[in-house]
Amino acid sequence: MTNSENQLLSTTIAAITPSDNGMRQQAHQRLEQLAIPHWALGRMMDLAEDLAATTSSMHPRVQRKSIVVMAADHGIVAAGVSKFPQAVTLEMVHNFVNEKASINALARQVGAQVTVVDVGVAGDLSALHSAPNLVHKKIAAGTANFAVGPAMSRAQAIRSIEVGIEVAEQLATTTDLFGTGDMGIGNTSPSSAIIAVLCQRTLAEVTGRGTGLDDAALSAKITTLQNAVELNQPDASDGLDVLAKVGGFEIGAIAGLILGAAAQHKPVMIDGIISTAGALIAASLAPASVDYMIAGHCSVEQGHRIAVSALGKRPLLDLDLRLGEGTGGAIAMNLVDAAVAILTEIATFEEAAVSKI
Amino acid sequence: MTNSENQLLSTTIAAITPSDNGMRQQAHQRLEQLAIPHWALGRMMDLAEDLAATTSSMHPRVQRKSIVVMAADHGIVAAGVSKFPQAVTLEMVHNFVNEKASINALARQVGAQVTVVDVGVAGDLSALHSAPNLVHKKIAAGTANFAVGPAMSRAQAIRSIEVGIEVAEQLATTTDLFGTGDMGIGNTSPSSAIIAVLCQRTLAEVTGRGTGLDDAALSAKITTLQNAVELNQPDASDGLDVLAKVGGFEIGAIAGLILGAAAQHKPVMIDGIISTAGALIAASLAPASVDYMIAGHCSVEQGHRIAVSALGKRPLLDLDLRLGEGTGGAIAMNLVDAAVAILTEIATFEEAAVSKI
Repeated sequence: MTNSENQLLSTTIAAITPSDNGMRQQAHQRLEQLAIPHWALGRMMDLAEDLAATTSSMHPRVQRKSIVVMAADHGIVAAGVSKFPQAVTLEMVHNFVNEKASINALARQVGAQVTVVDVGVAGDLSALHSAPNLVHKKIAAGTANFAVGPAMSRAQAIRSIEVGIEVAEQLATTTDLFGTGDMGIGNTSPSSAIIAVLCQRTLAEVTGRGTGLDDAALSAKITTLQNAVELNQPDASDGLDVLAKVGGFEIGAIAGLILGAAAQHKPVMIDGIISTAGALIAASLAPASVDYMIAGHCSVEQGHRIAVSALGKRPLLDLDLRLGEGTGGAIAMNLVDAAVAILTEIATFEEAAVSKI
Repeated sequence: MTNSENQLLSTTIAAITPSDNGMRQQAHQRLEQLAIPHWALGRMMDLAEDLAATTSSMHPRVQRKSIVVMAADHGIVAAGVSKFPQAVTLEMVHNFVNEKASINALARQVGAQVTVVDVGVAGDLSALHSAPNLVHKKIAAGTANFAVGPAMSRAQAIRSIEVGIEVAEQLATTTDLFGTGDMGIGNTSPSSAIIAVLCQRTLAEVTGRGTGLDDAALSAKITTLQNAVELNQPDASDGLDVLAKVGGFEIGAIAGLILGAAAQHKPVMIDGIISTAGALIAASLAPASVDYMIAGHCSVEQGHRIAVSALGKRPLLDLDLRLGEGTGGAIAMNLVDAAVAILTEIATFEEAAVSKI
């Protein structure tokens, strides 16, 4: 990618640097001195270290949380890859705006605000122009059907990423910890295609049942996606090409949100398979952005585990979730708060006057 | 066990009835109608169902949380089963009272109060007589060394359980959700012995490294415990006999706290291997008490997974924790809050006007 393609994306990528290794070491040293058996809080201590490195602080700020639900539709639904009708994307945006959906309930529980972004919903949302939690950034009324051609143009792919960056910048002053979320009927299909291409796996390995396909429909979905990837020939070395050929607008926007968070040196909680497909795109454009990602949970969707591993992450939770919207990430944000408490509120052996071994 | 042995324990056991299956069905029906793909919030929905059944309510109360850290010492440390000196139990009680320990930090994060109970610490805690968060219920200055005879008398075993019941009753008016915690240098040894006897496993299968034994010390610990069980011949059909012969005062008190919570029809979050050994004792005395237990996490200690399975539970978290104190349970309490949000705050398809399949 060159600067000429787009200034915002280029400057954002240029601003992303690895997390603070010195602060990581400092956090590690303190955690080793806590009045507990060595590293007895296990992966919570790893997370505490990561947060210190990400935020360059021994007192990581994570209190102000923003979960961003990127919503868009998918032309590939014409190939019958989903059980639910496309209209559900639009209906669910209303449900988010009305604060009655799963992500609203789970965000509320962890003290996060929810922002919904129309990146490409196939329906009119202008009636919601005054809703304070809805951002209008529609690129098109859904992607094209990538079973018969590219999902979007390269310019649209860049634009979708920039939408995410713009939202991250807009929320910057009120956000310490970002969370990614998605809504888009059919969006496990582009996610599986992206994961297959970027992780060099077969579609059979990374394609799941989405919202509940039976065996025959799953088999047909795999064949559809195999043919679509064969037809479009996405270039695995170019995340923008993969996004344009077999991606989705909300997946690009999620990649952009992650890049925007990383450029601000703020941690970003990654949800399930759609969010992780976005994370792979972000990682392909800016490898150091991976330092700022937290893998919230392990989805039932089989491609998810592969994608998370490719990012070098191990999910915090494994609760058989397969909803999306950012829900798994929202639940995992509780663990971020707990990890900060471990780093900042537990006395060392010396402070507590407890005998060491 | 007969009524004559002790009235409080008997009346408590008699008050424990299975959780409310009708309310479980009602919760199940609502959860199936939420505007999400079927059961897409997975194990969080199972937990929501359990909470409805436990509390007999479609709006389970879990806000007021009490984590109780039962503290006691163990004569078996004379056999060299732990790396840490016994004095650490006393020192850590001070650390809990000063609110500087891991459980204080993690309880604070989830909005839980911490109560510490001296059930049998080998040290003088009278200087802390005015500490509001410490309860004095010392039975003896540690158990006897069960490598050479029973850990305690049957009367002491009953008393240790009654301590837990008394604390549960004392906290009843300010607690919706209980959590179990433990402190006691050497207490993975009685826990492994209890699990081996009650789950009919070998000591090699259920004995771990505790606070960090090396291979040789682990092997010696297994041999010590094998010989101790052989010597004491605990009766696997009698939880009180197992507790008396190879148990610990804090393990009995944890069993009592669980029985007390179950008798009040309140959920109780179970922490790691020591708490789960207590849960097995509780289950052996009152099988219906299992309905009120939530398995918080899966410990690194290898006997823990076996004990949790024997209770028919699957832990919510798996984060390589091996600390005790109630810390894993505290972290998991966040998921209880999230499960209640799922049951009570998400709209159904009909309520949200979202199209069904």
